[in-house]
Amino acid sequence: MLFAVKMDVALPRDLDADVRADTLAREKAYSQDLQRGGEWVSIWRMVGQYSNLSIFHVADNERLHEILWNLPLFEFMTIEVTPLAQHPSDIAAG
Amino acid sequence: MLFAVKMDVALPRDLDADVRADTLAREKAYSQDLQRGGEWVSIWRMVGQYSNLSIFHVADNERLHEILWNLPLFEFMTIEVTPLAQHPSDIAAG
Amino acid sequence: MLFAVKMDVALPRDLDADVRADTLAREKAYSQDLQRGGEWVSIWRMVGQYSNLSIFHVADNERLHEILWNLPLFEFMTIEVTPLAQHPSDIAAG
Amino acid sequence: MLFAVKMDVALPRDLDADVRADTLAREKAYSQDLQRGGEWVSIWRMVGQYSNLSIFHVADNERLHEILWNLPLFEFMTIEVTPLAQHPSDIAAG
Amino acid sequence: MLFAVKMDVALPRDLDADVRADTLAREKAYSQDLQRGGEWVSIWRMVGQYSNLSIFHVADNERLHEILWNLPLFEFMTIEVTPLAQHPSDIAAG
Amino acid sequence: MLFAVKMDVALPRDLDADVRADTLAREKAYSQDLQRGGEWVSIWRMVGQYSNLSIFHVADNERLHEILWNLPLFEFMTIEVTPLAQHPSDIAAG
Amino acid sequence: MLFAVKMDVALPRDLDADVRADTLAREKAYSQDLQRGGEWVSIWRMVGQYSNLSIFHVADNERLHEILWNLPLFEFMTIEVTPLAQHPSDIAAG
Amino acid sequence: MLFAVKMDVALPRDLDADVRADTLAREKAYSQDLQRGGEWVSIWRMVGQYSNLSIFHVADNERLHEILWNLPLFEFMTIEVTPLAQHPSDIAAG
Amino acid sequence: MLFAVKMDVALPRDLDADVRADTLAREKAYSQDLQRGGEWVSIWRMVGQYSNLSIFHVADNERLHEILWNLPLFEFMTIEVTPLAQHPSDIAAG
Amino acid sequence: MLFAVKMDVALPRDLDADVRADTLAREKAYSQDLQRGGEWVSIWRMVGQYSNLSIFHVADNERLHEILWNLPLFEFMTIEVTPLAQHPSDIAAG
Repeated sequence: MLFAVKMDVALPRDLDADVRADTLAREKAYSQDLQRGGEWVSIWRMVGQYSNLSIFHVADNERLHEILWNLPLFEFMTIEVTPLAQHPSDIAAG
Repeated sequence: MLFAVKMDVALPRDLDADVRADTLAREKAYSQDLQRGGEWVSIWRMVGQYSNLSIFHVADNERLHEILWNLPLFEFMTIEVTPLAQHPSDIAAG
Repeated sequence: MLFAVKMDVALPRDLDADVRADTLAREKAYSQDLQRGGEWVSIWRMVGQYSNLSIFHVADNERLHEILWNLPLFEFMTIEVTPLAQHPSDIAAG
Repeated sequence: MLFAVKMDVALPRDLDADVRADTLAREKAYSQDLQRGGEWVSIWRMVGQYSNLSIFHVADNERLHEILWNLPLFEFMTIEVTPLAQHPSDIAAG
Repeated sequence: MLFAVKMDVALPRDLDADVRADTLAREKAYSQDLQRGGEWVSIWRMVGQYSNLSIFHVADNERLHEILWNLPLFEFMTIEVTPLAQHPSDIAAG
Repeated sequence: MLFAVKMDVALPRDLDADVRADTLAREKAYSQDLQRGGEWVSIWRMVGQYSNLSIFHVADNERLHEILWNLPLFEFMTIEVTPLAQHPSDIAAG
Repeated sequence: MLFAVKMDVALPRDLDADVRADTLAREKAYSQDLQRGGEWVSIWRMVGQYSNLSIFHVADNERLHEILWNLPLFEFMTIEVTPLAQHPSDIAAG
Repeated sequence: MLFAVKMDVALPRDLDADVRADTLAREKAYSQDLQRGGEWVSIWRMVGQYSNLSIFHVADNERLHEILWNLPLFEFMTIEVTPLAQHPSDIAAG
Repeated sequence: MLFAVKMDVALPRDLDADVRADTLAREKAYSQDLQRGGEWVSIWRMVGQYSNLSIFHVADNERLHEILWNLPLFEFMTIEVTPLAQHPSDIAAG
Repeated sequence: MLFAVKMDVALPRDLDADVRADTLAREKAYSQDLQRGGEWVSIWRMVGQYSNLSIFHVADNERLHEILWNLPLFEFMTIEVTPLAQHPSDIAAG
């Protein structure tokens, strides 16, 4: 099941430099693990924004929420979730 | 160069049935040609909407505009374009 | 898998009276079939609005889209879809 | 009398850890008491959000306000209230 | 139970003059009956708008919906409903 | 001359507890004096919000501004003012 | 008593040419009478818009509503009303 | 004096084909005359939109309004005007 | 050349009392100098808001920006600028 | 390839004066280097705003993102990116 997810990041200016570096490193590792596992299908930077547009392929809503809720940057993010379905014009639709 | 494009379709109720069928058939063929050519990378239906979210891979802005402007459904669409770049956490970034 | 769906209806004034009556009857039957089948869990009227708030329990995104796309009133509706998950404070969470 | 209520939570970063833990525990207990009492009919997590969608069944507006105003998290919430009525297509409408 | 209700009216230009006059007359009579009955407590014109702000005193949500749904101008209105409760500073609160 | 006024209150978390209690007490007294004087005609709590909807009956714009500007909570409020006129359907219109 | 009023005009394309010319002429005469009478203090075109920003000096809300409601273009306008008061920095404040 | 102007075009579907072709031809000629005259400094298509972003260099507000008001497509456009000034970081600022 | 300018003021709570008093005094003097000089034509308080609506008469965009940028309260303001032109119905239009 | 970019700046009040001065100096130098290099084609101040409207001419999306992400003021900016294409009415279109 596919979802488009847009994440806007707003790091507070007074975030401790070490906490910040650590959180960003954990976010990257967390994302890359899920990419390798096949659930975080795509991640793109939105040009000129501290934001990404991502595609997730997950078993269900519960799993998507679990993934997003546990993002190391979750508390600094505004998240928008769009459920997707197969498009009838998709050449992969057979 | 990648772009996310969201297209919302609003067909007028008084559109002639034949014109409608023909336009939809041409839209599908147009999209599938570009999918096969590699420029229209992905197309998903947004659940519960007469809308799609698509990813385009094109040479430049001019080419993207040419593709969108010539969509058979263009005059019935509201279109939103988001330029994308590689995300530093993308495992494909090497 | 649960979804909240908000549907706003705007019937065109020039809709033929018979078509209108028939479409509304089909919409009601369609909804009640899905309620009896357990997929359309709840439907409430929003006070003072030609709108409903509904809860759906479906297998996946594809099924939800199929249900909504085939609503007899679909072409006259504005639809908003919100994916839901179990809340940790829900007493049913065990 | 039914109401849909959407609650978005925004905990301040500088909230004392003990106060935070205590407030969250009281919020959970408060919600579960009202669930057991039958006034807080349903509570769902909105996927990817620190938000819930809830259904309340209360005697009147005064009672709903009393419940919401006394939520332990009230001062950190943005709340949206939608009065509901029975829908004519509801199979429970008889 | 009190509710504030804002109604914006948009009459279509092609509405038949007799239908228009008749609908407006029925709207006025309908409103005045409810005012005399004590359920439609206040009605004010919003300056410079084809809109009114009204206060309703009704038994419950069902009754408010019934009143609004049956407004002769309902199909030409955009309606906004706000549930009210007693304010602690109200001198009538005792 | 009548005005509808909506006031949303947002007290800062770091407001000194005594200042807070004193400001709220002064706000209540200030409102009740004006209610007794007949200028602050009605005040209702909006359900689930730290907000009120009020009706003012004042001599002119200058007086309304003077009243609002001097609210003890003014600096913590977002205020929306709507000028009202008599509605032709008002049974009090004679 | 002063009010700022913003009026956006949207003439329907199918308005009969004579009706259109007549309505515009009546609008101009109506405005100029009120300007000469001192109630319509100022009228400016907003650059690039079919809109005006105006200042009215009227006895009360009732009179302002009467003026606006009877604008020959009223049914084609979207109107925004802002009550004004004397500014403490105004050199005319004495 | 510089202004940024954004123009969104929405041609009605029932516009006569000849009128449409003639209007578009006149719009193009009108724009190109002003470009050659130096007042319409730049015009760009916004990708995927029936819109342009333009820069105007005109004597004053009156002249800008005159230019925009007389656009052959004016009645089908939504226009947004932004006054510009020299930026202190502009290398042309000397 | 005329412009309408709307200024919303939001003074931070932790602004030093002396700095605050001094800034407000300088703002008032600055405004009154420009009023006397004829460039700041009108200033009105918006009822119930810490905002003003002003009319400026300036040589060009550069001058308007210079005036606004140097407002003592500039850093605490949200500003909206609307270029104005003579309205064809203005009796002063001759 | 051309892009319009709107940048709104919001410097925090508690930014150290030296850091502020240094950041602004680096921003100016950064912008002017890119202007001299031909990638930052135009930069205008938006009247009355701490904002600029700029035109960029870059090789691709990746380069535009790199430029914007490395703006010394990036963390204090809200940025809006609009991809542009040649307009058919542009006299430079040949």
